[in-house]
Amino acid sequence: MMTTAVTGRDTVRQTRTEVLRRAERRLGELLADERARWSGVDERGAVPVDTVTSLVDAGGKRLRPAFCVSGYLAAGGDPDGPLVADAASGIELIHTGALLHDDVLDASELRRGAVTAHVKHAAVHQRRGWRGEARRYGEGVALISGVLATLYADRLTRGLPPAARDVWGEMVTEVQIGQYLDVAVAAEGVIEPELSRWIAICKSGRYSITRPLLLGAALAERPDLTPAFEEYGEALGLAFQLRDDVIGTFGDSTVAGKPVGDLEQHKMTLLLAEAAERDPEVRRLVNRPEWDTEALHGLLGESRTRIEARIDALVERARAALESAAIDAVWRDELNEMALEVAYRNR
Amino acid sequence: MMTTAVTGRDTVRQTRTEVLRRAERRLGELLADERARWSGVDERGAVPVDTVTSLVDAGGKRLRPAFCVSGYLAAGGDPDGPLVADAASGIELIHTGALLHDDVLDASELRRGAVTAHVKHAAVHQRRGWRGEARRYGEGVALISGVLATLYADRLTRGLPPAARDVWGEMVTEVQIGQYLDVAVAAEGVIEPELSRWIAICKSGRYSITRPLLLGAALAERPDLTPAFEEYGEALGLAFQLRDDVIGTFGDSTVAGKPVGDLEQHKMTLLLAEAAERDPEVRRLVNRPEWDTEALHGLLGESRTRIEARIDALVERARAALESAAIDAVWRDELNEMALEVAYRNR
Repeated sequence: MMTTAVTGRDTVRQTRTEVLRRAERRLGELLADERARWSGVDERGAVPVDTVTSLVDAGGKRLRPAFCVSGYLAAGGDPDGPLVADAASGIELIHTGALLHDDVLDASELRRGAVTAHVKHAAVHQRRGWRGEARRYGEGVALISGVLATLYADRLTRGLPPAARDVWGEMVTEVQIGQYLDVAVAAEGVIEPELSRWIAICKSGRYSITRPLLLGAALAERPDLTPAFEEYGEALGLAFQLRDDVIGTFGDSTVAGKPVGDLEQHKMTLLLAEAAERDPEVRRLVNRPEWDTEALHGLLGESRTRIEARIDALVERARAALESAAIDAVWRDELNEMALEVAYRNR
Repeated sequence: MMTTAVTGRDTVRQTRTEVLRRAERRLGELLADERARWSGVDERGAVPVDTVTSLVDAGGKRLRPAFCVSGYLAAGGDPDGPLVADAASGIELIHTGALLHDDVLDASELRRGAVTAHVKHAAVHQRRGWRGEARRYGEGVALISGVLATLYADRLTRGLPPAARDVWGEMVTEVQIGQYLDVAVAAEGVIEPELSRWIAICKSGRYSITRPLLLGAALAERPDLTPAFEEYGEALGLAFQLRDDVIGTFGDSTVAGKPVGDLEQHKMTLLLAEAAERDPEVRRLVNRPEWDTEALHGLLGESRTRIEARIDALVERARAALESAAIDAVWRDELNEMALEVAYRNR
C-alpha cells in the first residue's frame, strides 16, 4: 500500500481523470441510446437529443463534475464506486440544460465557441421556409432540449442515497431561483449589492462549487466536511463570479467563448454592484435609465487593482477554509490548485 | 370484512378521493414551503413558485393523478400507502410544467380559463416599464417556472421503488419528445397520419392515461396488469385526443377553457390527419401552404358522424382490454366509467 507522501498530486489527478472519464462514457452512452430510440420513431425525434449532445460535445470546462469527483475523493470515497460517475455525469447534464435555457433567457448567440441552439434552429426554420415564427421554433427546441437534459440528469442520479439526493434537490432548485432573480434584477434594473451577491453565491458558488463538493462528500458519507466545503465554495464562487465579470466587462470573446460586453448588455453584474456600493459616481451612472458605458468602463477600469485584490482575498479565504478540514494533504493542495485555476482562468 | 359486491362504486370513488386529497395536500405543502423559503431571500424569489402554484390552483381535471390512483387501487394497492400520493402529486406537477412550456411553444393566451403565465408576466414587464423585451421576460418566467415544477415533481417522487421509477422515467422523457414532434410537425406542415397518431398515442395515451395507470400498478407491485393497462390507455388516449380535436375544431372556448380554432392555427391534429388519410379532397386542401379553413370546416363537419363512430369504437376497445384483466369488478366498472368521461367530456 502506498503512503500518503508517495501518492502525489499526479496520482490523485490521474484517479480523478479516470472517474471523470467513466462519467463521460456514461453520459455518452445514455445520449447514444436515446438517440437510437427516438430516431427509431421518427428521425425528427432525435433533434432534442442531438441538441443536448452537441452542447455536451462542444466542450466546456467540466468544472462541476471535477468538483464533485474531487469532493468525493478528498472525502475518501472509493474511486471504483459506481455512484460518483452517475453524480458527475448528472451534474454536467443539469448544467447543459441550464445553459440551453440561459441562452434563451439572455438572447445569447454564442456558446462554447459555437452558435447557440435556439439561434441555430431558428435559422433552420427560416432556411427551410417552415410555418410559424422562426424565433419561437428555435427557442422551443432549446426549451425542450434543456428540459430533456434535466430529466436525463435525474435518471442518471436516481440511484443516489438519500443524503446525496438532498444535496442534489437543493442544487437543482436553487439554481432555477437564482436564474429567475438574475432575470428579474436585469429587467428591473435593481441596484442591490446584497441581492447581486446572493445571486452570485447561488449561481456560481453553490451551484458550481459547493453543491458538487457536498454531493461528493455525501456519496463518501462524510457530512463532517460540510462546513469546510461550504466556506471554500462560497468564497471561491464569489471569486469565480468576479473573474467572469472581469472577462465579461473588459475581456474579449476569445477567452470567454461567448459574447462579452456586460455593460453594453446592461447587465447588473456582481462586479458592477460592488463598484456601485463603493463608488457614488458609479452608483449615479447605473441609476440612469441609459448607461454611459464609456464612463462606466473608465471608472471600473480604474478600480481593476482593487477588484484583483478582492479576488485574491477570496481565494485566500477559500484556502483557509480547507486548512483544518479532515482531508488528505494532497487533496488540500489539489483543491487549492483548483481554486487558482477558477479564480485566475484568464491568465 | 365487506364482500366485493357490497364495496360498491361509491366506496371505491370515496377511497380514491381520499388518496387524491392527500396528494393535493402534499402538493400544497411543498409549494407553500418553497414560497416561504425563497421569499425569505427576496420577495422576487417567490415569483416562479407562485407561477406554478397559480396554475395548480386554477383547477384542471387532475386526470393523470386520478388514473394513477385508480391504477394503484384497482391493482389492490393499500389506500394508506404513502407512495401513491407522492406519485399522484408528482404527476400533476409534471403536467403543470408541461402546460407552462406548452403555452410558450404554442403562443397560447388562455389556459384553465385564465391568461397564460408568459402573457401575464410579459404584461407586468410592460406595465412597469422594465428593461429589455417584455416577451422574453414573460416567456422566461414560464420557462423557469415549468422547469421548477418538473424538479419539484422529481423531488416528490424520489422515494419511488425502481419499477415505478422506470415507468416515471419513460413517461417524463417521452412527453418531451412528443412535444417536440408536435412542434416539428406543425412547423414543417407534415401530413403523415402515422406520425400524428404516434404523437397522439405518446402525448394523450401514454402520458395521460397509460403511464399513470402503470405507475399505480408498479407501486402496487402488479406488473402483470401492464398489457391490459397499455391496451386500455392506447385506445382511450386516441379517443381522448380525437375528442380534444373535435372540441378544438368545432367547439367553443367555454368548454375547452383555452382558445379554439385548430384549423385557424394551422394545427395538424390527429382528427385532420386521419381525415386527410381518408379523403383526397381534405388531403389536397391541407397540402396547400394556406389553408381554406371554410372548406376544411365544411368537409370535416360532414364527417362528424364518422369521427364519433371512431371514438365509440376506441372506447369499446378500451373496455374490452379490461375484460380479462385480474382486477376487481368494481374497478373494472369504474375504469369503464372514466373512459366514458374522457371520451365524451363535451356532453
